Amino acid sequence: MNGKPTLAVVGATGAVGAVMLQILSQHADVWGDIRLVASPRTSGRKLSVRGQETEVVALTEQAFDGVDVAVFLVPDEVSTQWAPVAVAKGAVVVDNSAAFRMEPDVPLVVPELNSHAVRSRPRGIVASPGCATLSMVVAVGALHAEFGVRELVVSSYLAVSAAGQDGVTALRDQLSLVAGTDLGTHPGDVRRAVGDSTGPFAAPLALNVVPWAGSLQDGGWSSEETAIRDETRKILDLPGLRIAATCVNVPVITAHSAAVHARFEQEITVDRAHEILATAPGVVLFDNPGAGDFPTPSDVVGTDPTWVGRVRRSLDDPRALELFVCGDNLRKGAALNVAQIAEAVAVELSKA
Amino acid sequence: MNGKPTLAVVGATGAVGAVMLQILSQHADVWGDIRLVASPRTSGRKLSVRGQETEVVALTEQAFDGVDVAVFLVPDEVSTQWAPVAVAKGAVVVDNSAAFRMEPDVPLVVPELNSHAVRSRPRGIVASPGCATLSMVVAVGALHAEFGVRELVVSSYLAVSAAGQDGVTALRDQLSLVAGTDLGTHPGDVRRAVGDSTGPFAAPLALNVVPWAGSLQDGGWSSEETAIRDETRKILDLPGLRIAATCVNVPVITAHSAAVHARFEQEITVDRAHEILATAPGVVLFDNPGAGDFPTPSDVVGTDPTWVGRVRRSLDDPRALELFVCGDNLRKGAALNVAQIAEAVAVELSKA
Ligand SMILES: NC(=O)c1ccc[n+]([C@@H]2O[C@H](COP(=O)([O-])OP(=O)(O)OC[C@H]3O[C@@H](n4cnc5c(N)ncnc54)[C@H](OP(=O)(O)O)[C@@H]3O)[C@@H](O)[C@H]2O)c1
Ligand SMILES: NC(=O)c1ccc[n+]([C@@H]2O[C@H](COP(=O)([O-])OP(=O)(O)OC[C@H]3O[C@@H](n4cnc5c(N)ncnc54)[C@H](OP(=O)(O)O)[C@@H]3O)[C@@H](O)[C@H]2O)c1
Repeated sequence: MNGKPTLAVVGATGAVGAVMLQILSQHADVWGDIRLVASPRTSGRKLSVRGQETEVVALTEQAFDGVDVAVFLVPDEVSTQWAPVAVAKGAVVVDNSAAFRMEPDVPLVVPELNSHAVRSRPRGIVASPGCATLSMVVAVGALHAEFGVRELVVSSYLAVSAAGQDGVTALRDQLSLVAGTDLGTHPGDVRRAVGDSTGPFAAPLALNVVPWAGSLQDGGWSSEETAIRDETRKILDLPGLRIAATCVNVPVITAHSAAVHARFEQEITVDRAHEILATAPGVVLFDNPGAGDFPTPSDVVGTDPTWVGRVRRSLDDPRALELFVCGDNLRKGAALNVAQIAEAVAVELSKA
Repeated sequence: MNGKPTLAVVGATGAVGAVMLQILSQHADVWGDIRLVASPRTSGRKLSVRGQETEVVALTEQAFDGVDVAVFLVPDEVSTQWAPVAVAKGAVVVDNSAAFRMEPDVPLVVPELNSHAVRSRPRGIVASPGCATLSMVVAVGALHAEFGVRELVVSSYLAVSAAGQDGVTALRDQLSLVAGTDLGTHPGDVRRAVGDSTGPFAAPLALNVVPWAGSLQDGGWSSEETAIRDETRKILDLPGLRIAATCVNVPVITAHSAAVHARFEQEITVDRAHEILATAPGVVLFDNPGAGDFPTPSDVVGTDPTWVGRVRRSLDDPRALELFVCGDNLRKGAALNVAQIAEAVAVELSKA
């Protein structure tokens, strides 16, 4: 193609959109024009990207005129309706919603693990995984490449910004209600104080943790839990991987954590796991608890990599490892992974 | 013996002690005199038990004169030094510290699971498990009785009162510092705001979770994690049980939670697991997520039982089950379990 490709950011005004604009301003500039798109509610608003004030336009067919790559940072139903429109207008779509992730003819891509999959996109759509999967899959995938993962038990500690700005507002409101009180010592006292301010969550999160995220699936699973299983199997190309996840919301603004129990085909040592994680792309090993070195969400928020600590070999099984991982759900969990995929497409288009 | 036995509460002024005094006031009255004991720092203080103001006396040999049962709710080193003194003076000791839990000649008792073990106490000491173990072992033990547990992966969500009043104060201070701010969005911003107010924790807990509890053990494990393994094996009398725990502190005042992956010898169904848990002593089944029914710490704090929800059978293994459990670390996790053991001893002594 002539010159650099044109990018459309659909959902530029959202929580993930805001981080995408930061990333576009920081990364090596592979893009020609950048067009910002959102709902008619916010069209006309000006946002800054690459140091330039840029007007947001409403999502219409015309918004994709001349667009080469469109990243979709919008709710599922908006992607379902509009991604095919963008493709029909000639754009490659990189979608951050759950709409296409499990479609067999849509690749589900984590560039550190399966970048090759970007190129085979029969529907013109590439999907980015959910943030709960992305919080741990880069680290697990690096270990899998050498040891062959056979089973995962994942217990997650999910931050509220995964539920968008509404989630953040709800937690901040609740924290103001409990500060300076003696709440949290009688059954239901937090629930009564929080009243209607639960926001998008199934129960209060101030002074609490809530073992529910998403919608009810067969067998009592939540949709976030089955998504971790389905997406991890697809990304690692391991349809038979045993995987059981429990998703728990915690009162953290941004950055997901997970306690991961991973059983491998091969025996594994902590030393070798450390070597692999220390050099794996997109991973930072931070594991010296005697010196206070382990990742926590409030320390890693705003950073790109997956942070890994608390690496321990099972005392009962030389093939099993425990890890504690943290990663920013708005960056690697969403905007960054989408940007990485889109940039790979841009390079491919520029060469074509 | 003549009349009801005399009880000494050593550590009556502490976090667990306060709950013990409540429980002694509420339970059927098996005790004659109740003597309150603490350090010389607080002797002379008056505390209410069974509706009577009672003066706290200092811990000395004389404090055990005429005492039949002494419950120890004090730090490990105080139990190590003083429990043998109480035994030498003729008392049976029920110890809540970690000092004797793993001694082969000291039974480690959870009355719902191994009440028989109370009677064989060659050293005159019975130990109560740690709160992280007690948060899940009653539920797991009930399922084990029918299905035979073979492996556990436990990811815990630990409340700050497990670290005593200092832990509670630290979290309340931190929550006041973050309320009404936009902290939690830049790397380390919470750490900088909290400064020295981390209290007994390895990192700030406001807007954060901290994957560390206890002291460093071989292989990178924390002492709370190895304790869950050692204690669960001893209580269930399963020295070969595979068990891997990850202990994470969360910003909750009281009530521990755990995501438990349990693999059994036998195939298991959710329906049968529900039946067992619905009738198991000390357990409340609360599992209907479609109606918002699952336990959370702020809803169960201040209650006696182990609450169980989110029961799911593994999609890949008909012998494995996932559970989410919550229980009050100061009640069943400490004072209640100690009171139950002490009451069993009282009944035994009264019959003698
Ligand atoms: N937050 C995370 O951690 C995370 C991680 C992975 C994936 N995701 C997924 O990423 C997507 C965006 O999430 P978010 O957290 O950024 O949500 P958000 O803060 O609610 O933002 C939603 C964005 O979608 C736009 N939008 C909504 N309805 C639209 C319509 N009918 N037409 C055009 N634009 C519309 C909004 O524009 P207006 O401002 O004009 O309404 C806004 O820009 C979702 O699919 C989410 O599930 C989020
Ligand atoms: N908190 C939990 O959830 C939990 C759960 C299970 C087990 N435990 C264990 O239970 C024990 C008590 O915990 P806690 O949280 O109640 O601690 P805490 O709030 O710090 O109370 C400690 C108690 O021990 C007394 N004490 C300390 N040093 C003493 C000494 N030299 N002589 C006599 N008394 C002394 C204190 O008396 P003064 O007031 O006079 O200093 C106070 O009554 C610890 O072993 C802890 O590990 C706690």
